[in-house]
Amino acid sequence: MIYWIELVAVAGCAVSGVLAAAGKKVDLFGVMVLAVVTAFGGGTLRDLMLGETPVFWIRDPNYLYAALGTAVFTFFAARQFPFPAKVLQIADAAGLALFTIIGARKALVAATALGQPIAPLIVVTMGVVTGVAGGAMRDALTGEIPLVFRREIYLYATAATVGALLFTWLRSRGWDDARAGATGSAAILILRLAAIRWKLSLPIFRRHDE
Amino acid sequence: MIYWIELVAVAGCAVSGVLAAAGKKVDLFGVMVLAVVTAFGGGTLRDLMLGETPVFWIRDPNYLYAALGTAVFTFFAARQFPFPAKVLQIADAAGLALFTIIGARKALVAATALGQPIAPLIVVTMGVVTGVAGGAMRDALTGEIPLVFRREIYLYATAATVGALLFTWLRSRGWDDARAGATGSAAILILRLAAIRWKLSLPIFRRHDE
Amino acid sequence: MIYWIELVAVAGCAVSGVLAAAGKKVDLFGVMVLAVVTAFGGGTLRDLMLGETPVFWIRDPNYLYAALGTAVFTFFAARQFPFPAKVLQIADAAGLALFTIIGARKALVAATALGQPIAPLIVVTMGVVTGVAGGAMRDALTGEIPLVFRREIYLYATAATVGALLFTWLRSRGWDDARAGATGSAAILILRLAAIRWKLSLPIFRRHDE
Repeated sequence: MIYWIELVAVAGCAVSGVLAAAGKKVDLFGVMVLAVVTAFGGGTLRDLMLGETPVFWIRDPNYLYAALGTAVFTFFAARQFPFPAKVLQIADAAGLALFTIIGARKALVAATALGQPIAPLIVVTMGVVTGVAGGAMRDALTGEIPLVFRREIYLYATAATVGALLFTWLRSRGWDDARAGATGSAAILILRLAAIRWKLSLPIFRRHDE
Repeated sequence: MIYWIELVAVAGCAVSGVLAAAGKKVDLFGVMVLAVVTAFGGGTLRDLMLGETPVFWIRDPNYLYAALGTAVFTFFAARQFPFPAKVLQIADAAGLALFTIIGARKALVAATALGQPIAPLIVVTMGVVTGVAGGAMRDALTGEIPLVFRREIYLYATAATVGALLFTWLRSRGWDDARAGATGSAAILILRLAAIRWKLSLPIFRRHDE
Repeated sequence: MIYWIELVAVAGCAVSGVLAAAGKKVDLFGVMVLAVVTAFGGGTLRDLMLGETPVFWIRDPNYLYAALGTAVFTFFAARQFPFPAKVLQIADAAGLALFTIIGARKALVAATALGQPIAPLIVVTMGVVTGVAGGAMRDALTGEIPLVFRREIYLYATAATVGALLFTWLRSRGWDDARAGATGSAAILILRLAAIRWKLSLPIFRRHDE
């Protein structure tokens, strides 16, 4: 079940990677790279830092098939049809919600395997890294200041943080994976969509003299 | 034998890293960093994702000597002599061909060591990552949209993909390392040089409304 | 003792990460990411390449508390007060000095654990990576050509290299960790501050025809 949700999240991120190439003279291969980096970047970084190697998509090629298939499909489909921005935002928010919780969950499991407790804040951080880093790498590769840092996208990483905190707290209170995960994911999804709807954002950094 | 080929490929990539610094006010140290990143970036990423640590250039310092020596030599030589673009393109294409096949081969060997079959598509991907990622990092560090994504360079990663596919297929048909590797490398080299000569490229990404 | 010095160095780097966000419309979360990347980027890369996983800040959450606490404090403090450039330069130079030596030391220890000698040049490289990579990642994320490559900052990575060489040489001559480390760190600090004061820099890369 989680496995199929994960493949869908991979496909959603792959689409956002492809569409980031618009207007940048990126060729078919570059589009596939952007799709893979967006979909796998966060989880790869998490696996590397936890020492869980070979990383997840090397152990199971279905992730790669899902990402590359989606990228090629989107490459040709986007020439024919407009992609409605609303559908995309929902898909992107769903991807953020799912990857963040999957990432936090893997950090909890890894903690058990290491025989060493991982601090809750680290679990949350691993969740946020998993949810957010792929998109940041996509932006860096296409020469943008990563969107995740900028006010214009409204609450994004913050939504991931709140959901990951909620998930970690519920798990520590004895909730099972499925219920805690669904609740955490729902929190991220709702907060993210509310942020888009009502333009909620964090204060930006300003120096004293600005 | 492979070892010496690898050192030559390292030197070739180091030269391309140094020359990417032209006009960017990069100092001698920065030039050395660019050389090392270009030469080691792909192989390091491959080793990390496969879990083969310490990474290859930590285990054998000769790689570092080759890269740094080449960088310092190029730094001073480029002030005195023009580097003919044609020689460079051939050196770069040779580096791409060698690193890609070396990367695919290491993924095949790692698969055996892990006691777990790695899917052929993953082997190909590891080859392409090894061949291409160093140059992409070089471009990101010098503030360019990575060349590997752009049409102007003609078939580049695509050539690597074709050669890696060929190598993986020949190995699965029972060819030995040396013959399959030489064939795969030759395919990359020929395809890449043909792409430059006849300006072959993949279609670029275009949205429906562009 | 080393542990407390390390936490102070983390805080110093976190401040420099936050201040790099000035004028870039980065929000509170982005500021926290920049602080963490600047403070942990070099050490994370070192741990990954040496195969020391989970990386240091996953095993001990105090690093994360120090970096995030400093980031939030600086975010609000910078709105109220000017940060004198001189204090910052000294803090940054101290961070460079401490992280470089800590990184070289970890590579020496890892070498012992691996039962395989790591070449002195690799130890020096690991020190420089630890000291310099976090700042380079910070610059890449904020869309700058990494400062470490550019002449305007005067000797920076070069100072780290000289100090790491000195530390590695003194250790090989039988000096203990504390004395060799203090001497290496002092050399970096003095060279870096002297470079700022007298505008010392390496020659920049120039092609024959420029």
